[in-house]
Amino acid sequence: MWRSTITNSLNKLNQALSNSLIAHPHKSPRNFIRGFSLNYSDMSDNKGSKPKSGGGKKKEVKKETGLGLTHKKDDNFGEWYSEVCVSGEMIEYYDISGCYILRPWAMSIWETMQSFFDPEIKKLNIKNCYFPLFVSPGVLEKEKDHIEGFAPEVAWVTKSGKSDLEVPIAIRPTSETVMYPYYSKWIRGHRDLPLRLNQWCNVVRWEFSNPTPFIRSREFLWQEGHTAFATKEEADTEVLEILELYRRIYEEYLAIPVIKGKKSENEKFAGGLYTTSVEAFIPNTGRGVQGATSHCLGQNFAKMFDITFENEKGEKGMVWQNSWAYSTRTIGVMVMVHGDDKGLVLPPKVASVQIVVIPVPFKDADTKGIYDACLNTVETLKEAGYRAEADLRDNYSPGWKYSDWELKGVPLRIEIGPRDLANKQVRTVRRDNGAKVDVPMSQLVDKLKETLDDIQQNLFNVAKEKRDACIKVVKTWEEFVEALGQKKMILAPWCDEEEVERDVKARTKGEMGAAKSLCSPFDQPELPEGTLCFASGKPAKKWTYWGRSY
Amino acid sequence: MWRSTITNSLNKLNQALSNSLIAHPHKSPRNFIRGFSLNYSDMSDNKGSKPKSGGGKKKEVKKETGLGLTHKKDDNFGEWYSEVCVSGEMIEYYDISGCYILRPWAMSIWETMQSFFDPEIKKLNIKNCYFPLFVSPGVLEKEKDHIEGFAPEVAWVTKSGKSDLEVPIAIRPTSETVMYPYYSKWIRGHRDLPLRLNQWCNVVRWEFSNPTPFIRSREFLWQEGHTAFATKEEADTEVLEILELYRRIYEEYLAIPVIKGKKSENEKFAGGLYTTSVEAFIPNTGRGVQGATSHCLGQNFAKMFDITFENEKGEKGMVWQNSWAYSTRTIGVMVMVHGDDKGLVLPPKVASVQIVVIPVPFKDADTKGIYDACLNTVETLKEAGYRAEADLRDNYSPGWKYSDWELKGVPLRIEIGPRDLANKQVRTVRRDNGAKVDVPMSQLVDKLKETLDDIQQNLFNVAKEKRDACIKVVKTWEEFVEALGQKKMILAPWCDEEEVERDVKARTKGEMGAAKSLCSPFDQPELPEGTLCFASGKPAKKWTYWGRSY
Repeated sequence: MWRSTITNSLNKLNQALSNSLIAHPHKSPRNFIRGFSLNYSDMSDNKGSKPKSGGGKKKEVKKETGLGLTHKKDDNFGEWYSEVCVSGEMIEYYDISGCYILRPWAMSIWETMQSFFDPEIKKLNIKNCYFPLFVSPGVLEKEKDHIEGFAPEVAWVTKSGKSDLEVPIAIRPTSETVMYPYYSKWIRGHRDLPLRLNQWCNVVRWEFSNPTPFIRSREFLWQEGHTAFATKEEADTEVLEILELYRRIYEEYLAIPVIKGKKSENEKFAGGLYTTSVEAFIPNTGRGVQGATSHCLGQNFAKMFDITFENEKGEKGMVWQNSWAYSTRTIGVMVMVHGDDKGLVLPPKVASVQIVVIPVPFKDADTKGIYDACLNTVETLKEAGYRAEADLRDNYSPGWKYSDWELKGVPLRIEIGPRDLANKQVRTVRRDNGAKVDVPMSQLVDKLKETLDDIQQNLFNVAKEKRDACIKVVKTWEEFVEALGQKKMILAPWCDEEEVERDVKARTKGEMGAAKSLCSPFDQPELPEGTLCFASGKPAKKWTYWGRSY
Repeated sequence: MWRSTITNSLNKLNQALSNSLIAHPHKSPRNFIRGFSLNYSDMSDNKGSKPKSGGGKKKEVKKETGLGLTHKKDDNFGEWYSEVCVSGEMIEYYDISGCYILRPWAMSIWETMQSFFDPEIKKLNIKNCYFPLFVSPGVLEKEKDHIEGFAPEVAWVTKSGKSDLEVPIAIRPTSETVMYPYYSKWIRGHRDLPLRLNQWCNVVRWEFSNPTPFIRSREFLWQEGHTAFATKEEADTEVLEILELYRRIYEEYLAIPVIKGKKSENEKFAGGLYTTSVEAFIPNTGRGVQGATSHCLGQNFAKMFDITFENEKGEKGMVWQNSWAYSTRTIGVMVMVHGDDKGLVLPPKVASVQIVVIPVPFKDADTKGIYDACLNTVETLKEAGYRAEADLRDNYSPGWKYSDWELKGVPLRIEIGPRDLANKQVRTVRRDNGAKVDVPMSQLVDKLKETLDDIQQNLFNVAKEKRDACIKVVKTWEEFVEALGQKKMILAPWCDEEEVERDVKARTKGEMGAAKSLCSPFDQPELPEGTLCFASGKPAKKWTYWGRSY
């Protein structure tokens, strides 16, 4: 009975929300959304328009937008994404365009990924270090292809205080040229190899194309690994070991299916030998997104920076190098793939709150008993190793809280009301599919383990189904163009010629952006002899994924 | 017998080292030391002079400097410090003056401190976030006192690629002005308080006075906490809670005694209400060093950035704010305090290798048995939770290895030779005091726990004794000047007037730098009525530490 009453009020609440009649005392999405426009300058001075809270006072109702999202994922993906990042408290727009504030709700996800990846690379005997943020121009420009790739995006410091610097100093867009002069110094003999270093840091790429939270920002956080080996075989092996860790971050932690493969010559890392990547796909926009990259740099940088060693026989050799990185972009891909019209959907493995416990008091029921049960439940869950929190705020209704935690994407909600108390049970509600199950208190810990595991798996499965439904195998240019129009991730036989990829780009240029190769998957379907390239009609050498991308 | 032979060879080796006759294939201190001069420009191109290793080939001997340090701590502290940082592989000098590379040996110490501090602040419900590196000039200059303090050191980005930016953008020297516009936005009602955020990041202060590794560098790593409360009491409490964590970092982890106290008005944080700090002291140079600071900002920034809230009664209030930070400077203080003429001395709690196990093969002894015993010992120690490593390099003598690990400051060395094997024991040698003890294998784990604990405690005790011996209580200006000449940390009764501190600075200006107040210790000795200020002769209000400082 009390449950159906709650459900009724919830329905009413939702209606009210969509009519924007109920205040959200903690945030004013409309106010934030102003920041989404291209002119962010109005964000830094918000004194005049700053609304104040008072637990949802009536006179403020009109100023505020409701708790729900104003944009729908399928209708206007770009606005939906910005809104869910901001309203879900992952991101705050900053007064410098293309820079974003990572709020604790996002930062904790980054930290969870770090706490997986960092020990894994330490097991491989890779050590952490920290190189400076600044690069001198002479060093930055040493490797021609490399600097060509990055030069337009480099930010330059030219002044300190009121004085001009003698020489402008660059901010690292990546640290190959920062580090390798010292690799040259440190590496003398074969016993100094392998040299395997990593750093967690910020980098700056002053891009002018559409900035997007997490996905394309002018400053971002990442790890960058830089290693040197005596042989190509060792370098090749590491490239794949690291790529596998990146796959695990996406598939095991973020519940996002990715494709492992090799980048084309056009798309590889500037100055490197070859680039491998994990590629994700965003069905709503029909765009691929490069998830993380593991590059074999070959001996190109070693030549430029004179990184040589003496082998066992006293002969001089040149090292083989790799570099590899994943960034806060991972978080953006997660938001895009799993989020829905109610807000964020966080996979349990990375959610900083996995379970929220909400009291559902009712008329004359034993309110104190309910609150105590909530606190005890949280305690039990924390002891069992879950990240759980009770929401005992007394100025919000249960329904309001449900919506609030749905917006923030918490994987599982527990409701405790009078009947639950009487029956020694709790009601669980899943964020991913809305399924409601009553769980006896006595089975809580075991049952919730199952449920969270199932949510994690289900998020992956659903994402994979959607992604797979977007994959289209084509063999001709006409099929390719049609599939591109349908926002597909296109698998096509290709002659693997740079000129042909440039041609594909030129022929597909348009408002939506040109198509390019995403990767040639390691897992290659059979390529019957005589298969022709979809674009050039020459003999095909491999299957390659194509599409628009971020 | 074999032991005395080893000792003999070791003595010979040490002699040889000091005569620079034996090559160190891994490094060439002389080559590095070039970098210590004011002109670092020659560091980026070292092709011509790069020596190659070959396990210590004779023909290279003359090119190389020995393994020992060329400078002594008591004779030339500055050069000794630079050399021990570089030869101990903590730091590499970088081709931009004032920037340094933190090598894994230093980075691991930073990470150990993080792994203490980060969970501690999370227990206080402080959450991690990440704000941008860049600040727009309008925001940076909002708080007048604050920007006056930092303006001369701010680095400005004025170009991206080849284009000039419309408005120059500053790089954060600290993040008060970066963060607080958003605190204004996020804080509406009393329920949004306290807001307690922290970030781990890099900051840039383009100082022109003597750069020194760790201690004074143009970019450094730190954590910065920024919190807002409804009441001053809460803010005051947190200031001290955080300061206590800083004390624990120094005393419990780095084994360095510090004094907790309050900064003078002249020395407090620019724009803040009051500053507390932990102050360390370097006996060799007679300089105090501000170890870490915990500031109460009062309501000054809240006023400037309009950070207000509505309380329970619907009244408007202004928040009380704190900010607090410790940086990689901590590592420099540790090197300065504990290092000796053999190299670094690392406290066990922060050493990334706590115990190094070195085989001491001898003539016809069972070499394989000895090597196996080393590996087994390391395994046993690792299982017991120690950070242990075996040094089985076959191209170095045991004596060479002893010196190498002493240079790197590893707290405890285990030697295993034929007699140890026969007696089922190992020999342990302490880095801090050189004490040698034979330990039965059966008691290894327990005994080593005792030993490492004792090393940790002994390092602290010795440092405290030396520091205490430098403290001089004075009451008159004459005594003060004399004590300053003797490089003391001076405790003097003070009238607590800003003008008087400026006067002390002016009167002590000289080649060594002026004296200033370090802190007024919380632990105040009795101040008998009628005690006069050492500098002004006015009635003294408190005891304050004075001295030169970093």
